[in-house]
Amino acid sequence: MKPEILIINGPNLNLVGRREPSIYGDRSLDEYLDTLAASTPEATINRMQSNHEGDIIDMLHEWGFDKSIKGIVLNAGAYTHTSLAIADAIAAIEVPVVEVHISNVASREPIRHHSMITPVCRGVIAGFGLDSYRLAVEAILKF
Amino acid sequence: MKPEILIINGPNLNLVGRREPSIYGDRSLDEYLDTLAASTPEATINRMQSNHEGDIIDMLHEWGFDKSIKGIVLNAGAYTHTSLAIADAIAAIEVPVVEVHISNVASREPIRHHSMITPVCRGVIAGFGLDSYRLAVEAILKF
Amino acid sequence: MKPEILIINGPNLNLVGRREPSIYGDRSLDEYLDTLAASTPEATINRMQSNHEGDIIDMLHEWGFDKSIKGIVLNAGAYTHTSLAIADAIAAIEVPVVEVHISNVASREPIRHHSMITPVCRGVIAGFGLDSYRLAVEAILKF
Amino acid sequence: MKPEILIINGPNLNLVGRREPSIYGDRSLDEYLDTLAASTPEATINRMQSNHEGDIIDMLHEWGFDKSIKGIVLNAGAYTHTSLAIADAIAAIEVPVVEVHISNVASREPIRHHSMITPVCRGVIAGFGLDSYRLAVEAILKF
Amino acid sequence: MKPEILIINGPNLNLVGRREPSIYGDRSLDEYLDTLAASTPEATINRMQSNHEGDIIDMLHEWGFDKSIKGIVLNAGAYTHTSLAIADAIAAIEVPVVEVHISNVASREPIRHHSMITPVCRGVIAGFGLDSYRLAVEAILKF
Amino acid sequence: MKPEILIINGPNLNLVGRREPSIYGDRSLDEYLDTLAASTPEATINRMQSNHEGDIIDMLHEWGFDKSIKGIVLNAGAYTHTSLAIADAIAAIEVPVVEVHISNVASREPIRHHSMITPVCRGVIAGFGLDSYRLAVEAILKF
Amino acid sequence: MKPEILIINGPNLNLVGRREPSIYGDRSLDEYLDTLAASTPEATINRMQSNHEGDIIDMLHEWGFDKSIKGIVLNAGAYTHTSLAIADAIAAIEVPVVEVHISNVASREPIRHHSMITPVCRGVIAGFGLDSYRLAVEAILKF
Amino acid sequence: MKPEILIINGPNLNLVGRREPSIYGDRSLDEYLDTLAASTPEATINRMQSNHEGDIIDMLHEWGFDKSIKGIVLNAGAYTHTSLAIADAIAAIEVPVVEVHISNVASREPIRHHSMITPVCRGVIAGFGLDSYRLAVEAILKF
Amino acid sequence: MKPEILIINGPNLNLVGRREPSIYGDRSLDEYLDTLAASTPEATINRMQSNHEGDIIDMLHEWGFDKSIKGIVLNAGAYTHTSLAIADAIAAIEVPVVEVHISNVASREPIRHHSMITPVCRGVIAGFGLDSYRLAVEAILKF
Amino acid sequence: MKPEILIINGPNLNLVGRREPSIYGDRSLDEYLDTLAASTPEATINRMQSNHEGDIIDMLHEWGFDKSIKGIVLNAGAYTHTSLAIADAIAAIEVPVVEVHISNVASREPIRHHSMITPVCRGVIAGFGLDSYRLAVEAILKF
Amino acid sequence: MKPEILIINGPNLNLVGRREPSIYGDRSLDEYLDTLAASTPEATINRMQSNHEGDIIDMLHEWGFDKSIKGIVLNAGAYTHTSLAIADAIAAIEVPVVEVHISNVASREPIRHHSMITPVCRGVIAGFGLDSYRLAVEAILKF
Amino acid sequence: MKPEILIINGPNLNLVGRREPSIYGDRSLDEYLDTLAASTPEATINRMQSNHEGDIIDMLHEWGFDKSIKGIVLNAGAYTHTSLAIADAIAAIEVPVVEVHISNVASREPIRHHSMITPVCRGVIAGFGLDSYRLAVEAILKF
Repeated sequence: MKPEILIINGPNLNLVGRREPSIYGDRSLDEYLDTLAASTPEATINRMQSNHEGDIIDMLHEWGFDKSIKGIVLNAGAYTHTSLAIADAIAAIEVPVVEVHISNVASREPIRHHSMITPVCRGVIAGFGLDSYRLAVEAILKF
Repeated sequence: MKPEILIINGPNLNLVGRREPSIYGDRSLDEYLDTLAASTPEATINRMQSNHEGDIIDMLHEWGFDKSIKGIVLNAGAYTHTSLAIADAIAAIEVPVVEVHISNVASREPIRHHSMITPVCRGVIAGFGLDSYRLAVEAILKF
Repeated sequence: MKPEILIINGPNLNLVGRREPSIYGDRSLDEYLDTLAASTPEATINRMQSNHEGDIIDMLHEWGFDKSIKGIVLNAGAYTHTSLAIADAIAAIEVPVVEVHISNVASREPIRHHSMITPVCRGVIAGFGLDSYRLAVEAILKF
Repeated sequence: MKPEILIINGPNLNLVGRREPSIYGDRSLDEYLDTLAASTPEATINRMQSNHEGDIIDMLHEWGFDKSIKGIVLNAGAYTHTSLAIADAIAAIEVPVVEVHISNVASREPIRHHSMITPVCRGVIAGFGLDSYRLAVEAILKF
Repeated sequence: MKPEILIINGPNLNLVGRREPSIYGDRSLDEYLDTLAASTPEATINRMQSNHEGDIIDMLHEWGFDKSIKGIVLNAGAYTHTSLAIADAIAAIEVPVVEVHISNVASREPIRHHSMITPVCRGVIAGFGLDSYRLAVEAILKF
Repeated sequence: MKPEILIINGPNLNLVGRREPSIYGDRSLDEYLDTLAASTPEATINRMQSNHEGDIIDMLHEWGFDKSIKGIVLNAGAYTHTSLAIADAIAAIEVPVVEVHISNVASREPIRHHSMITPVCRGVIAGFGLDSYRLAVEAILKF
Repeated sequence: MKPEILIINGPNLNLVGRREPSIYGDRSLDEYLDTLAASTPEATINRMQSNHEGDIIDMLHEWGFDKSIKGIVLNAGAYTHTSLAIADAIAAIEVPVVEVHISNVASREPIRHHSMITPVCRGVIAGFGLDSYRLAVEAILKF
Repeated sequence: MKPEILIINGPNLNLVGRREPSIYGDRSLDEYLDTLAASTPEATINRMQSNHEGDIIDMLHEWGFDKSIKGIVLNAGAYTHTSLAIADAIAAIEVPVVEVHISNVASREPIRHHSMITPVCRGVIAGFGLDSYRLAVEAILKF
Repeated sequence: MKPEILIINGPNLNLVGRREPSIYGDRSLDEYLDTLAASTPEATINRMQSNHEGDIIDMLHEWGFDKSIKGIVLNAGAYTHTSLAIADAIAAIEVPVVEVHISNVASREPIRHHSMITPVCRGVIAGFGLDSYRLAVEAILKF
Repeated sequence: MKPEILIINGPNLNLVGRREPSIYGDRSLDEYLDTLAASTPEATINRMQSNHEGDIIDMLHEWGFDKSIKGIVLNAGAYTHTSLAIADAIAAIEVPVVEVHISNVASREPIRHHSMITPVCRGVIAGFGLDSYRLAVEAILKF
Repeated sequence: MKPEILIINGPNLNLVGRREPSIYGDRSLDEYLDTLAASTPEATINRMQSNHEGDIIDMLHEWGFDKSIKGIVLNAGAYTHTSLAIADAIAAIEVPVVEVHISNVASREPIRHHSMITPVCRGVIAGFGLDSYRLAVEAILKF
Repeated sequence: MKPEILIINGPNLNLVGRREPSIYGDRSLDEYLDTLAASTPEATINRMQSNHEGDIIDMLHEWGFDKSIKGIVLNAGAYTHTSLAIADAIAAIEVPVVEVHISNVASREPIRHHSMITPVCRGVIAGFGLDSYRLAVEAILKF
């Protein structure tokens, strides 16, 4: 059976393609992820988005003990920098999580230089635009 | 057609008139805002309140690209000081946002001296009690 | 009539017994709290859990002005360290709140050394494993 | 008799309209305040400007105990961020002071994020361009 | 044979009932502890007080390897915040130590927000007035 | 010939007796210093006050090389905490300077805990109300 | 009956006259205080010295509630900068305490720039050499 | 013609497979990179290693303006956290640089949480063991 | 026509030659600047000095828009480190400003290591004694 | 006559061999120092231990001016990091002091990375287990 | 015989004219320094460049004790901000060193605001573009 | 066969005897180490010096896995305080390293108070002048 990969997108990522195109590009995240799923036949790729910190924790709990999920790709948006509760959820679950960012967060404002979740993620990929998601999927396929 | 103004109130502001009257006064925010709407015939004033950070982001997304909204008055309560995700939402939308506070936050505890959202708001009005809302509405009418 | 006590558990505490057993033990929190309620006949003990910061604020508002509640036991999990909004809610309500932690948070990472909510709680009990909840109930019965 | 309002402008504000027009606009402050006075028939509006910290303190002392002054609008310019002596003068006098800024100071350099005088002012209005002065006058008329 | 519990009180706690009654109440600590010992027949409760940091270390050394002591209740007063040497002593001995505070130290001055000894204590109880001691004894009886 | 002593008072000290009487008392500084001069026949006591940092520097330059002046008593008010230029002036002159404060500045807000001028003054006297001036004069008479 | 004044000297002050004469002079503190007592006939001056923090607390407790003591002069030496426990003792007693230092501590190393005890002392006198003690006695005689 | 990719490894990376195998694994970097080159026929992969900061700068200068190089993969080892000079070199050249780390540096000591070079790199990949290099090559192939 | 250069000296620089000769030398600044003017026939050199921050701002405003001034040499003395208002004035005017210091300020106390005005000056010259002024004039002649 | 060396051990060092054997080894300090004295016939080695900061100061005063003592070996335990008073005592006496630590304190918690006493000691030896004492004695024999 | 001056350029300065022309201009440093040498007939000007910190130290050692060298002009590039070892070398040698920067480093990123080497250099010249080198040579000719 | 000991000296240590003799003495390090080798017949002592950080890493790699080396004595000079790369090299090799300093670095400037390498060295010896090397050799002979 094909492995499953879950992509969770956090706050404001529903606006990608609409918000600050100089940073995030003008392609919608949904379109990109459709293409990515189509070009990755060796895995089933699911995805979810929410602006609620609690929803992201609920999702991690729901899928994080599921043996059929090979890895979770998480772009926690601004919660990356403020949410210890999401970090705790990642530490508590069993499925490995890969942190992604579209932009190179370290070249933006100082508050975006520190990530609460990096220490509990398996790895980080940042700065390659939407291609960061593809690289994260590639990384998980090698786990 | 009359311009619309949206007032969003954040966590614990549903308790105004009930909570710490020495700081916030004993008049409920709902009563005050009814009066304010009635005395501002030149605009339609809508309002919403939630204790959920994610709800505030959802509201900003929903109304923040609506050409009929002239401005948003946001009292983000304690999220003012902790929510980078709300700041990102304000930066992402097109309708200008005015930050308001009932009390003079700078004369309270240090954690309330820094606002995450001020840099992405058009302006700030703080310290005039409930009259801060009226001044914010006045400011938006001049945009 | 018997006094009521409300126990509110925050993010990731639904996983106790499952998550990091070396820190939290392997007994589920639900089982423990059933036993605690049964062995405390002099009070009615209710409990709630949510991973949403906003839900915890809503609960505090809903029960915090109820004269029949003698005290609230709050384990805010990771929100202990990041939520000024929950602290504001505790300050705004009338029922006294006791902060509890299963582990001795001060012996963990630095970010867990500072609590946003301690200054507005009546007292703190930390480090006694699940027995922290029983001690908090005992404390409230003396109020 | 009509109430009086005093507007005090601090260092470099005599150059508005000439200095950094991308931040302050190209209209001179004098022209703007003439218009503002003319369009506010319900109050007498006086104004003063100085580049000297001591002059601002002297002015606050001279007018700050005068019962006919309903409020003082103070744009202390760079002294906002460095002058404890002006803050002391504001705390010492009886007429309430409203702090104004033309730009949204929190979105400029870090040294402009902290105000020495906010804790002793009645309220703050910042970021609305020259319209900040009108809003401050409006606020005082409601005191 | 009955288990023994040792209560050690540090600097200035001999003045409780006399010193700052708004914080510590007006009942002497000795009277309270007499009552507590009388109402805890299942254990033998001993107690000591000293204003000397070195005495507290000596006491911890003397009793801290004694198998008949089930636990030590330590209110280290101001040394809580400054004494690494007491923390080392607690780490070195075998009997578990419970840290107690009469007041909710986190709601007082910043220097009282950090405890040197919490990381090496089994648990902490703070803010319940003199009842903090009873709760600590209860906690130890469950060890 | 009798030695001379110069007393320099800085910003807002002209308001003593009028400003914040809970901190500074309700006696005017002028009245007090008249009495002090009258009761100190062994020296000639001169005094000056200004709200201008530059004036204080000018005064220090003017009198600070005068052999007939035995010492200068300086209450620099808020400039104590912000003026490196006054500190440089004190370091440059030859007459020794004694720093005085009416209140115990260390028990007020943090910004008043650090003095720019203490390192270059001969000594400091603070917290004795207006009697601080008398003690400073006594100290200088022993130089 | 003559008022009594207690002078408490802390660690290493027994070495004055012997230790670092460039800072403290070469006169022993005992000799100086004998002379001071002899030249102050209007009060009885007692004195004590100890290198033990606990002893200083014990002394403050023993004499701090005695109605016949008009004031305590405390040179806490290095404990000035590290002892919260002595500060607590000063806050707890009823007799007012005057902090003295022989040298101008603010012109020495940074760790000597902050005093733990100033906020709870009535006033501070520093930098006048041994004459600091005389000035403190003079100050107390005016209480 | 095939694009070229340059892999530069910094200090101590010659010891991979030998040094701290619990962090870096026990496979030598050379073996791994041979395999990677062999399995990436669509590009020519060159590599270099040096323990000298200056050598890394020299290499970046030498290859960084070469149009035939599509991208540089840089694992700067400990220089990541201390070398502003390497960061300047990356900013100065024209070929884009991808920062890689074998381990998840954010979960190690604090000094490894900040990277001097991230702001001037195109993107970052960390935490996937030696597979980080493959992902970096994949990322460059999409440039 | 010959270009003009304005030299502005700030607080305490009128004492050069008199104050701290080990740092500033014993030659008066006036004598030196006379010589400098005489030996620079290709420009007209004017100079001013004031101990008042406001005066320096006034001078910058008065001359800073004058097309016949080629550059301003500013030694702001201690205001270098504390005056944001002077920095604002420099940013507002059109004539370029060169910051000079007689001593090597970075080798003195930490408060002198940071300059408020460097970011808005064209360049900085420090540490060459009075020769710093000559070098600044040379620099301006090349603008 | 043989030179004398004094070894002073501070708080908790009486527990060596009993406390945290993974850090300090399981040999008692007394046994080790007996052996050391026996194997150093060229000097008389005395030793003392106390858990009291004041005792250590008293010992330093008592022996620190004794010409027959060639050097003092001081392991101040936790007071190393908190006691300015011991540092003052070392600075005040004439006999040189060598600081020793059994463990490599810099590899333990951050609070142990800074020593209050190093600046006033002649030298430091740390990290060689009990052999640190032998090396300190060797060092002193060369003074 | 003509005096000699040595110009040492550090990392990345070989790219001037090629790298970030908006900051450094587009003229190569070699061309500029040729011209400078030609127009300074009164001295022999030698120059060296290296990207290696150790090379710069070696050069300073080699020439720093040579009596025929009147001064060294050092642009240490990024090592200015990170190299304590270069600072030690400057302090160790006998020939005076003048620090130069092409750009006004204080107006760039915060890490470039602090120089490790300024305290041990004779003086600093920054912000005049390549003309900074000429001014440094002029300064040395006056030593 | 005799054990070998390697002594590595870092930047500027080739100047000992020439540089800052008040800190380092006037004897050259080479002369001293010749004597030391001659007086330590029980071991073969080799030594190396370089001003290049990379050379020191290369040396540690070359000798750090050699079973015939009993220990390495490393005086890393200024790299002690800035080089994480050297620290990584020490952590990576197998031969134990002893850190030495000629002066008591903690009594010099703050930047020399923190060592990057202490946590990975076996022990530290500092402040005994050149005799620090002998003590380090003695320590290694006991490993």
